[in-house]
Amino acid sequence: MTLASKHLLGLDGMPQEDIQFILDTTTTFRAVLERPIKKVPTLQGITIVNLFFESSTRTRISFELAERRLSADVVNFSAEASSVKKGETLKDTARNIEMMKIDMVVIRHAAAGAAHFLSTVLSSRIINAGDGAHEHPTQALLDMYTIREKCGTLRNLNVCIVGDIAHSRVALSNIYGLKTMGANLAVCGPKTLIPRDVERFGVKVFYDIDEAMRWSDVLNVLRIQFERQDRTFVPSTREYHNYFGVTKERIDRVNKSLIIMHPGPINRDVEISADVADGEHSLILQQVLNGVAVRMAVLYLLGTVR
Amino acid sequence: MTLASKHLLGLDGMPQEDIQFILDTTTTFRAVLERPIKKVPTLQGITIVNLFFESSTRTRISFELAERRLSADVVNFSAEASSVKKGETLKDTARNIEMMKIDMVVIRHAAAGAAHFLSTVLSSRIINAGDGAHEHPTQALLDMYTIREKCGTLRNLNVCIVGDIAHSRVALSNIYGLKTMGANLAVCGPKTLIPRDVERFGVKVFYDIDEAMRWSDVLNVLRIQFERQDRTFVPSTREYHNYFGVTKERIDRVNKSLIIMHPGPINRDVEISADVADGEHSLILQQVLNGVAVRMAVLYLLGTVR
Amino acid sequence: MTLASKHLLGLDGMPQEDIQFILDTTTTFRAVLERPIKKVPTLQGITIVNLFFESSTRTRISFELAERRLSADVVNFSAEASSVKKGETLKDTARNIEMMKIDMVVIRHAAAGAAHFLSTVLSSRIINAGDGAHEHPTQALLDMYTIREKCGTLRNLNVCIVGDIAHSRVALSNIYGLKTMGANLAVCGPKTLIPRDVERFGVKVFYDIDEAMRWSDVLNVLRIQFERQDRTFVPSTREYHNYFGVTKERIDRVNKSLIIMHPGPINRDVEISADVADGEHSLILQQVLNGVAVRMAVLYLLGTVR
Repeated sequence: MTLASKHLLGLDGMPQEDIQFILDTTTTFRAVLERPIKKVPTLQGITIVNLFFESSTRTRISFELAERRLSADVVNFSAEASSVKKGETLKDTARNIEMMKIDMVVIRHAAAGAAHFLSTVLSSRIINAGDGAHEHPTQALLDMYTIREKCGTLRNLNVCIVGDIAHSRVALSNIYGLKTMGANLAVCGPKTLIPRDVERFGVKVFYDIDEAMRWSDVLNVLRIQFERQDRTFVPSTREYHNYFGVTKERIDRVNKSLIIMHPGPINRDVEISADVADGEHSLILQQVLNGVAVRMAVLYLLGTVR
Repeated sequence: MTLASKHLLGLDGMPQEDIQFILDTTTTFRAVLERPIKKVPTLQGITIVNLFFESSTRTRISFELAERRLSADVVNFSAEASSVKKGETLKDTARNIEMMKIDMVVIRHAAAGAAHFLSTVLSSRIINAGDGAHEHPTQALLDMYTIREKCGTLRNLNVCIVGDIAHSRVALSNIYGLKTMGANLAVCGPKTLIPRDVERFGVKVFYDIDEAMRWSDVLNVLRIQFERQDRTFVPSTREYHNYFGVTKERIDRVNKSLIIMHPGPINRDVEISADVADGEHSLILQQVLNGVAVRMAVLYLLGTVR
Repeated sequence: MTLASKHLLGLDGMPQEDIQFILDTTTTFRAVLERPIKKVPTLQGITIVNLFFESSTRTRISFELAERRLSADVVNFSAEASSVKKGETLKDTARNIEMMKIDMVVIRHAAAGAAHFLSTVLSSRIINAGDGAHEHPTQALLDMYTIREKCGTLRNLNVCIVGDIAHSRVALSNIYGLKTMGANLAVCGPKTLIPRDVERFGVKVFYDIDEAMRWSDVLNVLRIQFERQDRTFVPSTREYHNYFGVTKERIDRVNKSLIIMHPGPINRDVEISADVADGEHSLILQQVLNGVAVRMAVLYLLGTVR
């Protein structure tokens, strides 16, 4: 079996069997990560460029580890969005990469559509590592893998994404992917951070975190990124924590086996309290491990099929 | 056959048969780049340090790809020129590198003569990746390879370099190399950007781009780098474009198979119009491909000979 | 034989036979560095992350070369101390690394105890590449190896560390290691840069450099780092040089085979005069070479033992 697309641009429109196939392949690489030598020769001689126009320590390291453990040759390119003139330069950068005979490009860019744009001008395989507020498909795939690993299935699970839904590529990719896999979706956050038309995705909306927790099997808590927004939507981190913070007290109150996830990095005691992040409900560290395995699976599936 | 020098510091004084040998060897590596696996074990166990005191995304990536595809071990070192005290520090950095048993050093530095200086204090092989306004030999070699590939020879071709000749290491290396290979050379640009004594190199001078185009078989159009000059030599990018911009209209007017080259990155619609850069006369992307192959050839020839 | 600890956090408390074992193993890797191919497959498939929260060109390159020459997979992470919130973030970064199944972590951090902290939360092997003003064990090991190589033994040698003892991790690691190996220790510098209680380490104190030189077999001259101190302890570099600078004139006056060392980078003509740094008494470049070999030995010993 091969994937429908030769790129991974997003989960919007990705067929259910392709998501299934990626998640199943991830299991193989999870096993590789448990071996003393965590390296396979699968992508030997393949050149991958990590094109990071936005800084991202953990996603970049996760991809780079996945690439090296598949024995690919890795070239890193980091640029502050500010120092690169957008548009034309991305086009010219892309064409240069094309000519240098690079097999795969992992791109993170502040502009929604950057990965898709690259895929229209390059013959290299493109993997979207986050494009603006649009999609971050490997994050959603690792979230889904982590839930499936814990619960056995995604079908009919109640998954609620909490936080700044309006500016989140993690939220959007999770919504696309989880809907396709048959989960029930909700979002929760202050009105200012919920897109007006979110219900057209078939998503429930909660403005009350306690209500959301009563409904949910899984809470995926997003990082509150004050720096990404042009203006202030939340009065203070303290107020945010009071109204929407996922705390031990709130979890105790719903009294059930709620799963807590977070894409990281965590603002401890803002969107999530430290004891919850480190507690028994949390799968946060498991997500990090599965992130490497999911990225190995995606790179393998896209890099070995002609 | 081996090269006369164990370093590549510049094309000034490089014998014709050495340039010929590098260009012929490049053809071999061009073939490697067309294979599914673009990697050869030639420099296995060889350590190369990329010592970039000036930032340069595309030259650095081109070298790094060449190095990895030859299976060398690569260590990158980037420093802003400002944070490094010049002179003494370069000397001490060099000696440290020497002691760490590094086989080859690729150096880019704002000071003319930096690569030559390193070659006098180190036993490592030194490759100049651009030293101030002095030389950038691998760029000129890839330009020559690209012309030769298209025209079959360099002998008796009319090649005109257009733009800021006075501050360009690309211009100087091209002039040295192309003269040696028997081409006829010219430069074209505003009087303020042409060195007064350029004719001593046996180079024609044009101050009129249309006249230059009528004379030329090849136009090598340089990037106008306003940031490199201490003062302003050109009133505006718009005026520069009007007087010296290589446009479709101007090419149509000369009505011949003129070759257009550019070392990149392009200022679209300043020194070259976008339609020319992307059009049938342009070999710009071919230059990028040949850049990796030329650098593989140079690294191979210097790295394997004792 | 295996080392008592599975980490290298410092030389404080390291048994004499462990230091001996590391120095003896270093000799093996010194031999590897004299071969045409300086690479061994020892750590193939092992992943090492270089986690540098303080910038350090030469230590980072020395470690990276050691890692690549042992055939490890290397991932670099650099962060300005300012951009990383200390404490919590280091903890979360550490746990992420843990989950990504990284075998070894080389850490440099501005906070004393950072490496030790990592060792308490991670199962990876931790190597301290400098933690605040605390320890820098690989530097002291390479210093000891360099002295032993020259003098045959460390026992009963008179070693004096000169400069800013109060803020130096190099000084502290050298004191711990050399004491354990049976050397006689002294420190020398202006009163403001000598810790009040340094004699409790069994260390002589000199405030006069000429007196120190008469006593010493080895002078280890530290870099005066004006930038590290919160306030000024030294009136000027010129005055420092006059009172404590290790000059040719002073060496000639003591008239013996004094060994001069310096961890680099040198402030020429401040703490050491240029002619001494480059002269016959100096082992400074030998230290750089031995640095790669010592780091190979440490990485090998910690990376191969289960």
